[in-house]
Amino acid sequence: MNKELDSIHHVAIEVKDIAEAVDWYTTHLKCAIAYQDGTWALLKFSNVSVALVLPGSHPPHLAIPCEHPEKYGEVKPHRDGTESVYLSDPFGNHIEMIRGTEII
Amino acid sequence: MNKELDSIHHVAIEVKDIAEAVDWYTTHLKCAIAYQDGTWALLKFSNVSVALVLPGSHPPHLAIPCEHPEKYGEVKPHRDGTESVYLSDPFGNHIEMIRGTEII
Repeated sequence: MNKELDSIHHVAIEVKDIAEAVDWYTTHLKCAIAYQDGTWALLKFSNVSVALVLPGSHPPHLAIPCEHPEKYGEVKPHRDGTESVYLSDPFGNHIEMIRGTEII
Repeated sequence: MNKELDSIHHVAIEVKDIAEAVDWYTTHLKCAIAYQDGTWALLKFSNVSVALVLPGSHPPHLAIPCEHPEKYGEVKPHRDGTESVYLSDPFGNHIEMIRGTEII
């Protein structure tokens, strides 16, 4: 792992039914359920995680741990205890700068 | 790294201008340009890569290396020399099962 590069903690993608999606991903791919409720789930792959989120809750995004997210804007707390700032690239893709420096 | 789990080689996201997107990502985040032309680019992060693709070329997807992609369907070659099969989850998210077992 290259320490000079940012890491990606998770990729969030939208699904309309969390349980059905978790069933599909764990059936077709080798991944582990790190968290699951009716509104979102976190699937661990060997090098990165995939968050399954319902439409309208969080936008699809890449989440990047960083030590000082406040340098990107106003940091907001989330229900899972994390804190982050969302950025958008010029084309509407979302990047979540999430406080923390650990990966996986 | 957990060898029992699948790895994700890259996450592909759509952008309308490759050069502008590469400039934005390399300015705002610590990532390295592994490949770039006018139609796509590959950015390396420490644990996974991000492919920037033009709309209509490839759908946004997660790419997962696997030894035998043919077990998922008809394998198709790509211009970069890779071979893969695209799957869709029940909600229209695309997964590219790409031949190979190496990561990064």
